[in-house]
Formats: sequence, structure tokens, C-alpha cells
Amino acid sequence: MTRYTAPLTEFRFLFHEVLGLERYGNLKSFAETTPELFDAVLGEAAKLCEEVLHPLNIPGDRQGCTLHEDGSVTTPEGFKDAYRAYVEGGWPALACDPEFGGQGMPVTLSLALNEIVSSANMAFGMYPGLTHGAYEALHQHGTDAQKQTYLPKLTSGEWTGTMNLTEPHCGTDLGLMRSKAVEQADGSYKISGQKIFISAGEHDLTENIIHLVLARIEGAPEGIKGISLFIVPKFLVGEDGTPGARNAVSCGALEEKMGIHGNATCVLNYDDATGYLIGEPHKGMRAMFTMMNEARLGVGLQGLAQSQIAYENAADYARERQQGRALSGPAAPDAPADPIIVHPDVRRMLMDQRAFNEGARAFYLWVGLQADILRGDDDAGTRQKADDFLALLTPVVKAYLTDRGFRHCVEAQQVYGGHGYIAEHGMEQFVRDARIAMIYEGANGIQALDLVGRKLPADGGRAIFAFFGEIDTLIASHADKDAMQEFCTPLKQARDRLEQATMWFLENGAKNPDHLAAGSTDYLHLVGLTALAWMWTQMADAAQQALANAEAASEAPAFYEAKLVTARYFMQRVLPDSAGHLAKLTSGADSMMALPTEAF
Amino acid sequence: MTRYTAPLTEFRFLFHEVLGLERYGNLKSFAETTPELFDAVLGEAAKLCEEVLHPLNIPGDRQGCTLHEDGSVTTPEGFKDAYRAYVEGGWPALACDPEFGGQGMPVTLSLALNEIVSSANMAFGMYPGLTHGAYEALHQHGTDAQKQTYLPKLTSGEWTGTMNLTEPHCGTDLGLMRSKAVEQADGSYKISGQKIFISAGEHDLTENIIHLVLARIEGAPEGIKGISLFIVPKFLVGEDGTPGARNAVSCGALEEKMGIHGNATCVLNYDDATGYLIGEPHKGMRAMFTMMNEARLGVGLQGLAQSQIAYENAADYARERQQGRALSGPAAPDAPADPIIVHPDVRRMLMDQRAFNEGARAFYLWVGLQADILRGDDDAGTRQKADDFLALLTPVVKAYLTDRGFRHCVEAQQVYGGHGYIAEHGMEQFVRDARIAMIYEGANGIQALDLVGRKLPADGGRAIFAFFGEIDTLIASHADKDAMQEFCTPLKQARDRLEQATMWFLENGAKNPDHLAAGSTDYLHLVGLTALAWMWTQMADAAQQALANAEAASEAPAFYEAKLVTARYFMQRVLPDSAGHLAKLTSGADSMMALPTEAF
Repeated sequence: MTRYTAPLTEFRFLFHEVLGLERYGNLKSFAETTPELFDAVLGEAAKLCEEVLHPLNIPGDRQGCTLHEDGSVTTPEGFKDAYRAYVEGGWPALACDPEFGGQGMPVTLSLALNEIVSSANMAFGMYPGLTHGAYEALHQHGTDAQKQTYLPKLTSGEWTGTMNLTEPHCGTDLGLMRSKAVEQADGSYKISGQKIFISAGEHDLTENIIHLVLARIEGAPEGIKGISLFIVPKFLVGEDGTPGARNAVSCGALEEKMGIHGNATCVLNYDDATGYLIGEPHKGMRAMFTMMNEARLGVGLQGLAQSQIAYENAADYARERQQGRALSGPAAPDAPADPIIVHPDVRRMLMDQRAFNEGARAFYLWVGLQADILRGDDDAGTRQKADDFLALLTPVVKAYLTDRGFRHCVEAQQVYGGHGYIAEHGMEQFVRDARIAMIYEGANGIQALDLVGRKLPADGGRAIFAFFGEIDTLIASHADKDAMQEFCTPLKQARDRLEQATMWFLENGAKNPDHLAAGSTDYLHLVGLTALAWMWTQMADAAQQALANAEAASEAPAFYEAKLVTARYFMQRVLPDSAGHLAKLTSGADSMMALPTEAF
Repeated sequence: MTRYTAPLTEFRFLFHEVLGLERYGNLKSFAETTPELFDAVLGEAAKLCEEVLHPLNIPGDRQGCTLHEDGSVTTPEGFKDAYRAYVEGGWPALACDPEFGGQGMPVTLSLALNEIVSSANMAFGMYPGLTHGAYEALHQHGTDAQKQTYLPKLTSGEWTGTMNLTEPHCGTDLGLMRSKAVEQADGSYKISGQKIFISAGEHDLTENIIHLVLARIEGAPEGIKGISLFIVPKFLVGEDGTPGARNAVSCGALEEKMGIHGNATCVLNYDDATGYLIGEPHKGMRAMFTMMNEARLGVGLQGLAQSQIAYENAADYARERQQGRALSGPAAPDAPADPIIVHPDVRRMLMDQRAFNEGARAFYLWVGLQADILRGDDDAGTRQKADDFLALLTPVVKAYLTDRGFRHCVEAQQVYGGHGYIAEHGMEQFVRDARIAMIYEGANGIQALDLVGRKLPADGGRAIFAFFGEIDTLIASHADKDAMQEFCTPLKQARDRLEQATMWFLENGAKNPDHLAAGSTDYLHLVGLTALAWMWTQMADAAQQALANAEAASEAPAFYEAKLVTARYFMQRVLPDSAGHLAKLTSGADSMMALPTEAF
């Protein structure tokens, strides 16, 4: 009862007319492809998403996963075949290292793939999605032998990977971790403990699952500085590279949860399971952050991805559902009523969603591009700048895109009226599925704290000032274009508010760190709003250029005209929230912290 | 895994120190009671809610309702006994007319009862809740004979009532209705058609169900002016007043929905069912609005009610869950970590919820008080003013309290981190249950349209100007109190923004009605924010007075100090959103309406 059409035109516009990916031929990952190939690759992926993955989304939610008495878990009907098709298409390998069988394509493209997979079927997308985090940690921190053993199979998708952090008493505060590791004579470790909330922790899609597990080596220092990262394969891998003996890790339970029922969220019990240390002892957090940062971008996309598919269905419904008459006179006088898209408040909800979706997509692709630049540019200064942006904006992609993405799923559901609350229409599933993205891979409050507590002050605020610099350059470049001022002026106002917030933090954060934390979520949203305004200004410019030279443009004028309308809507109807965020942030921590604990 | 404690201290404070209900002895409903009785009655209800209704909330969601082959529906285990206890306690009769067995207590008190029942178990509360709407329509529009036949049983709760509006192709636009009524020789009608989304449409709690059904009498005018309201009892009522023959109305299906699983949401099929006209032919909408307005206040409360119970559990969790350390140094140095309530961003979520819950409660009780004044005051001018406020603010109670209530349930769920997503903790149920309140009894966008299209312009804007007058009087009365300025100043600012928005509508709405509709949701939120700021100013004043005269105060100083902190938080951290609403509203309809339909 839902449909999904991958927004390929949007991607083309962003790749070629906004981001100008053609300019990045100097990067290795871009050199091996052509801009046209980008479109073709994504077009192929779109078919799989639309025709194979999406039809399983509602049935997968209904059926969920099943834990059997022998500890095995089956995924919903159809997932196994769909996963096989995904692997046969070579999709897991897209952005992986060619040395291990990967295709070496850009991160930017890989993120676009993630978005459309996640729109089509978020629960399904998490199986390969988590694998990629495990791949990254191994790729950056594993020994050559470990890489040779595991990376080719993770790259091909023959095996999947997991991330094991959380324990019942410890989530955000990993220093409290109890899972333990005891070194054996052969250099391996015996791992014991219980991990919870392990997505894709057990399933029937692949012949092996590679768990990356945080645990404390016997005698390790207390707290976070005594945590190490281990590879714990479900089946131990023999000399010939094939799965052998079953390891002592088992699924104790599947969590009953609000959504993403098609993904198996497991309690995993480790009972002297054999594990192999990755990197140095007690340095597990570093490797874990490699996985986390990668995963955080992916989770941000999930928020947008659900908002996108929810929007597509809400727009269809608003065009079809007939109810009431336009205030300006009947729009469909021969029908018993007008389609509800004539009503301004329905438009408001749809335009809110559009303005977010298109702006957020531009934003995450730009951030993804920084990852490609960081990996492949020859110039150290360029790499450093990209690294700064990636570090600063990863928590913003994660939290802003999931906070707003969830909110827009709720709005899309609202367009359906009572029918939105009924399971068969599928809109309530988007809301339930999107909800987890605000929580996992570091709850959004933690992202905000990471932003203001670590990323903002790093190197004297170098990253945020570079961000202001990018915006200022853009505004300056349009200084003499009258038609751009309706975008540049509100962008400038938002940027100035963000600067005021930053200065307020600089002045007050040192006196009382609670001031920083108290304003962290408002600050994160201020960055998110400003970033999207910046993106919309670039998109408006690209649209105006295309309209001015319509014969050379790739799309019909209506496409670019819609871009200008939506850009205008963003500036007039979304961006004004920046005023509230600034006012709240500069009120400081006092009223927030004054109540004694027992008063709550 | 959840707990509920009715906020009785809050009610006492509002009843006696803020609203001063003692001053309303002139009203009949207040004269028959004493202020102390209010507290005692609510205290009794609280026991039932906490001990009987709340323990059934999670099990009721899990089990849901069951439709059997014979068309009968069973409610979740325990609901039948709980309903019996509810009836034996006399709760359905609380605010009903003594002429039909009611207790004649104030609406204000009845709303307070609704809140705590809905917090304890929203799905359960809908069975008696909908009955009350049917009671009101019959009480105001029924004949004496109809009243004698049905009201005593609805008052006692021996029978329940329903509201039948929606059909598959028509929800908001009731003019499209197809259900038909054919007059019979005996003056009764045969009703045929299908109604959907009928809450409590079929169940096993009572021996009879009285359906109030909208249908079109054969030959009636087209559209909304040809709709009549009928009584269609599940069992026809004999001369002796007891249920007799089964009527031709049957439950065709139960909807599978996002939440409120404990309430039976039915497809009802009418196959020449016997019905009795209420009021005049073709004037059904008038009677229906009687039910709707009553129900809309009740739905508004549901939003707050879910936010309240979600807050209580989130506050407990935040005090218990240990994770990380306070930025200002360990708060619990002997424990492995501090409770998460030390973290500002967790505080932010809890304070947001508190500031909303307490402000919203004051607001709906004040609006409820207008209903008591309207019914019972001797002075026509006083009654008219109360009627104006009730009309103006009912859509605000409905939509603002449910929009924000839902949002705060999501925030409370967020406090739990990953555990909030897991069913056993019960937090995700609050979110799923609260979601419907933004949709039913008129989706929130319809409330906003009612506010700006009907309520605002009525009598030349008399109601909104009276509202400004109340605020101005309050501000003026505190002009020389320095300690009140931190509340009065932001209240004044919000009130001025609301006035600017109103003036903008006056200037632009006539030119283009889309401008009104485009700004309607922002306007409604602006009214809601201003109303809560007004309430918080009154609460702050009451708290300051109590602190100044602590010996005479009812509560300990800590209670009033917490009120001042929360009032301050509301002004600093919630009210600034008013700036964004005004900016969006005054941008008008153009960017919202410019896209052609096919561009979506």
C-alpha cells in the first residue's frame, strides 16, 4: 500500500549542477568513474530498491524476525532472496577497497545508495549497513592477516558484520562495560559477557557473521581507557578461509520494539567465545569511533530516507484524496470535492517535507564529498579542511536529519488523516521505523554534546570558522545578483545568528560548561538550519543558471522553477526557527539546572 | 513497567490558588459542592486510576481487542472488571444532569477526571469518554422521551455511546456522506451505510451501545445541509426501558492501528437498522458539533495526559539510570556513574515536558471553567464572554495540547535512550497512543482552520480582543511588582506578537483567504504559547504570594520554588518559538501555494 520511486533526478541535479562532481577527477575514487557512470549505477540500484526491497517493507514489519529454540533466527519471508540479489548486484562492494574485491567508488555515491536502500526498506538496509561499519574498523585497524581473512567476504556481502557496544547497564557510558576478555596461549582471547541491542546480531542471510565486540582485557585499566576491540566470528574461520567450528556466541532473545521489525535486534551472550584483538590492547575506543563515525552518517540518512518515502506517499494521497473545496473556488468543479492538495495547511506539510528532504540530501552529499576529499586529495591543506568539516558536521547530519526526518514522517502521516493511523496504509510504519534513528549510534543529545564539547572547540574553533568562511564566500559571490538576494539575505541572518551563538558559547562556556551543554541541541539545530539554507542558496543559484540557459539545461524548466519555489519556502517558512534557537541558547543553563533532583 | 501517580498537588494548587474556584459559588454546579470536596473526589478517582486502570495499560496494548465470528468484540482481559469498578464508583455520572441521575458537578472537575483516566489508560478512557459526547448531544437536542429512554443509562454508565461520522470516502468533508435514512410509517427510520473508525463501536463492557449516526434522509438537500443525526441502539429499547431485539448494525472489522489497541476501532455496517431522528431533519451537523466540541476538549486532554505519564516515568528513569558524570564534577562520587538527570540535555527534555504539562493543565482547566460559567452564571454578559472564550480556545486546547503532548512523549521516550524503543518499558506505547489525538475529532489542521476562519473573525474579533484584555489586565496588575517582570515582560512580547499576527490576518486575509489558511497552524501555536505564558504568569504570582506568606500556604516552599523555576524555564526556553511562528505567518501563502500540483 506504499510506493517508492528513487529521486534520481534530484541526485543528478546535485551531482552535476550543484556539487559539480566533475571537478573532483583528481580524487582516485572519482578518477576511476565518470559522472555518467554515477547516474547509471544509481539507476540500477533504484530498480532493486523499487522492485525487490520496497515490496518487502510492510510484510517484513508485520512478520518480523523469529528466534527458534536452537538459537537460530529467521528473517521475514523474502529477505533472504532479496539479500542474495543485493549481493549478486555487487552493491556491498561499491565503495570498498579494490584490494579486497571492492569497486573503489566514491563515498558520496555510496551514501546515495544507502539513502535509497533505506527509503525502500530500512530494516533490510541495516543488514548491509552495519557490515560497512565493521568493514571500516577492520580496514583501518586490522592486521594484514585479519584483513585478508575477513574483508573480502564482508566486501562481497557473503558475510555480514555487527557492532557490539551496549550492555544492559551501559550504553552511552562505555566506561562501565563489564564484558571481559582473557588472553589465551595462542594469542587469541576468550570473550564473556552480555551485549544488548545488537542489530543484525543473528540471522539467516549469510553463512557467517563477524561480530566486532568491545570488552575489557583482564587487568585492564578502569573506565574507557581499558577497553579493547575484538573480532568474534559466529563461525571460526579455518585456514582455507571457510567457516568452521561454531563459536560460543548465541542469541538469547530478540527485543520487542517499536519498529524496524524486519531487522533482528538481539541480546547476544558470549560464553568464552574465541575473539581476536583488533589493534592495540585498551585502544578499542579509537577503532570503535571509526565504525561509529561511518555509521553516524548512515543513520542520519535513515532519517531523511524515511521522510523522503513518507513524502512521496503523502503527496500521492494529497493529489488523490478528495475532501472539501479550495478557499479560492473549486479546483475540480466536476468532482464531488477538490483533492486535498488545494488546502494550504496540507501544502504546508508537504512543502515542509520537500524543503527538508531536498536540502538535507544536498547537505549529506556535500559532507560525504569531504570524506572522498579526505581520502583522496593530494593537498594536505585541502585534506585538513575536509577532515575538519567531516568531524564538525557528522553529528549534525546524524542528529539534525533524524530529528527533522522523524518530524516530517509524522507530518506525512498527518496528511492521511485517520487513514494515517491505520497499519495497512503504511504511514505509521515510517514513523515507527524512523524513531530509532534519533536514538541509536549515540542518542541525538550525545551528538549535540559531541558537537559543542569536542568538535566546536577543536583547534580553536577552526572548523566552524571555516564553515562561516564558505558561507561568506558564497554570499559575496552573489553580491551583485539581485535575484539571489531573497536567498542570500536570510542565509546571512541565519549565519549571523549562528555566529552570535558561537560567540556566546566562547564567552560563557569556560565559566560554566553547563552553559554549553544546555544550549547544545539548540546549537546543533542552528547549524543544521544554516547548513540547509546554505545548500538551498546553492541550489537556487544552480536553478537560476539553468533557467537562464534553458537550452543547455539537463531538466525541463519546471524542475528548476520548483527548486526556486522550494528554496523560497525554506527561507520563509523553515529558517525563521533560528531566532528561537538563538534566544533559548543565550538564556543559559540556570533555569534548566535550578530544580533539585527530588523536585522532578 | 510504567507507573502513574495522579498529580493531585498540582490540581489543588490550580483549583484553589490559581483559578480560585471558591469564587464561583454563584454557579449551580459549584454551589452543590465545596472546594474540599473537589480534592476528595479527585483523590478517590486517582486511586482507581493508579490501582485499577493503569496496570491494564500495557497488557491492554499487547492483547488488543478481538472480533469473533459472530460479530461480537471482546476487550482486553481485565477491562470488563475495571469498567464495572468505574461504573460502581459513579464516575460516568460526575458532571451529568441530576435530573437523569447525574451528580451535577462542574465541567472543570470532570475534565480533571478525564485527564487522570486518560493518563492511566487512554484506550480504556475512550469507552466512557465517547459516551459523554453522545450524552451531550442527546441532552441538548433530544426529545423528552428520548432523554428519558437513554440518558439515565448513559449517565450511570450501564450503556455506552458512540459517534458515527466517518465513511471510507469522507472524513473532514461530511457533505460527501452517503449513509442514508428512509422514514418509516411509525416515524422511525431505516439506516443503511458503512461507517469507519468508530471508537468503542462494539465491545463487551455493557449490555447496550447507543450509536449516534449521521445519515442523509432520502431526498435531502445535497451536501452538509442534508445531513441528519439519528439514535441507533445496538439493542432496541423496549417500553420497559430494557434492551430488546438486536438492531441491524454489526461490526464488520476491527482496524489494525498504530496504538490505542485496547479500544475497539470498528467498521460498522448499517443494514436497514432502526434509527430515531434527533432534533430536526437536515440539522444533524448542529447536534454533531455539540458532541464534537465536548469531545475536542477531551482529546486535547489526551495529549497532555500522555505527556504527563510519560514525564513521570522519564523523570524516574533519569534519577535512576547511571551513565556518565556531571560536567561540573561527580554528583554521586561513590557510585560508578552519576544519574543522567545531572546532564543538561536530559534536564532540557524533562523541563520542556514539565513546563508544558503544568501550563497546559492550567489552561484547559481555565477553559473548562468557562463552560461552567456559560452554563451557570446569571449575568448574560458574563455568559457571553465565557462562550466567546470557549469557542475561541477549544480548537487551541485540542490541537496545541495534542501537537505538543505528542512531541513531549517523544522527548520522554528519548530520555530512555535505546530502552525507550523497547516495548517492555512502555514508553513507545505512550508515543503510539498519543499520536491519534492529533488526528481524530478533526485533524489539527482543521482545528487551526476553525480557529482562524470561524472563531477569530466571529463578532468582529470580539473573542481574541477579550483575550488580549485579560492578559493586559494581568500585566497591569503586576506593573509595580519587580519580581513579576521576568514573567510579565516575555508574556507581553508574546501577546504583542500574537496581536501583530492578528493584524496581519485582518489586513491580508480578506484579499486572499489562502493567507489565513497558510498561517493557521502557526497562529494556533502562537495562541497556545501565549495562553500558556499567561497561565505561567498567574502561577508564578500565586507561588510568590504563597512564599511571601509561607505559614498560611498549603504546600511546602519547595513546591512554590519549583513553580517559579519552571515558569522561568517556560519564558526563557519555550516561549521564544513565538518569534518563528510570527515570521512564518507573515510570509503569507505565496511560497506555499506556488507549486503546480504535478510538481509534488
